[in-house]
Amino acid sequence: MADKLTVWTYDWVPPGPRGFVRDLRLRWAAEEAGLAYDVGTVPFDGRETNHLDRQPFGQVPFLSDGDLTIFESGACLLHLAGKSETLMPRDAATGSDTLQWVLAALNSIEMVSVPWWFLTLSGQDDNPLAGWMDKRLAQLEVVLRQRDWLAADRFTVADLLMADVLRIPRLRAHGERPASEAYVVRVTDRPAFRKAHADQLAHFAAADQQRGSPA
Amino acid sequence: MADKLTVWTYDWVPPGPRGFVRDLRLRWAAEEAGLAYDVGTVPFDGRETNHLDRQPFGQVPFLSDGDLTIFESGACLLHLAGKSETLMPRDAATGSDTLQWVLAALNSIEMVSVPWWFLTLSGQDDNPLAGWMDKRLAQLEVVLRQRDWLAADRFTVADLLMADVLRIPRLRAHGERPASEAYVVRVTDRPAFRKAHADQLAHFAAADQQRGSPA
Repeated sequence: MADKLTVWTYDWVPPGPRGFVRDLRLRWAAEEAGLAYDVGTVPFDGRETNHLDRQPFGQVPFLSDGDLTIFESGACLLHLAGKSETLMPRDAATGSDTLQWVLAALNSIEMVSVPWWFLTLSGQDDNPLAGWMDKRLAQLEVVLRQRDWLAADRFTVADLLMADVLRIPRLRAHGERPASEAYVVRVTDRPAFRKAHADQLAHFAAADQQRGSPA
Repeated sequence: MADKLTVWTYDWVPPGPRGFVRDLRLRWAAEEAGLAYDVGTVPFDGRETNHLDRQPFGQVPFLSDGDLTIFESGACLLHLAGKSETLMPRDAATGSDTLQWVLAALNSIEMVSVPWWFLTLSGQDDNPLAGWMDKRLAQLEVVLRQRDWLAADRFTVADLLMADVLRIPRLRAHGERPASEAYVVRVTDRPAFRKAHADQLAHFAAADQQRGSPA
């Protein structure tokens, strides 16, 4: 019998981030792979310090798999990919292609897009990271013009992660990248994404009722 | 017989980045693991477009392993870690700890420190990413106060990567983090780091002579 998987997230978040909290990446991967999982919670209030023993940066998600606990959504996804050929092909060439695109989503795209997004929130008109980000997104657009999936000619965990990085509304609204936009639409139209997304929204909506604070 | 490993980097770079070009991460990992490797080059001139078929963002390093080519230094390190228990322990618990800290180096620390560094280069006095970065580095300092190595109670590829992320001079000079500083000194004092570092410097120095442009 497989060890019990638990995806850990906050007990509640304000309306803004709902649908984007990164436990969604793990829910989505588990749905794609047909892996049963529970959802566990840590309090949103006091999140900076209340679960540092399981996530030293005070964030979510983290994953437990039997006795193991793993943080970093990228590491959790690679851990889940080890359980499922749906997420990551097993042959050397397409497996390493998948791995490199998982890392590219995190370290070539998200490393620029998240700080860019952070600076847009501060209302700076002339975002000093815009040039760097535009260049990276243009390079990715070239890749996505040439193929439907990043690796292995089919959906893999690399697409799950890249689409999750790209689907941020401010990013989609910034610039014209038709191949990347079609890619985000294609990947997020998968039933496993839609279920994970709906489940996250339902999780936080249920918390509103318990908390007595409407969204 | 093992497939031939080649670490790809530029044929030349200006003096500034020498000792920090990320082929060093791969050389270092190969040295730690006792894996034989060659060094291949792509031209620094025209780097934005001359090797997009092997690195779609026009960067280095990338790795070839027989017929495979892999980009993203993090993916290359995980690929090499698959060949060496020195880099990554094989048991489930310490292996997943190592994986999570590799991803934390890339996506919790470098995702903030590289954009912060990029903004410091533009001479902005009031770096808008400083608060976020200081918070992450303070959280990491707490971890490094408690132990010498990130995972498995010994050196792993997670330390290689985290130390490489932290050893940027501007970062070391920014703020007081004695445990992190001692960690960087400890990890970069390893013979494999010193050899990889010296080899990279020698590689680019030899290129000066061929190019006729002194450093």
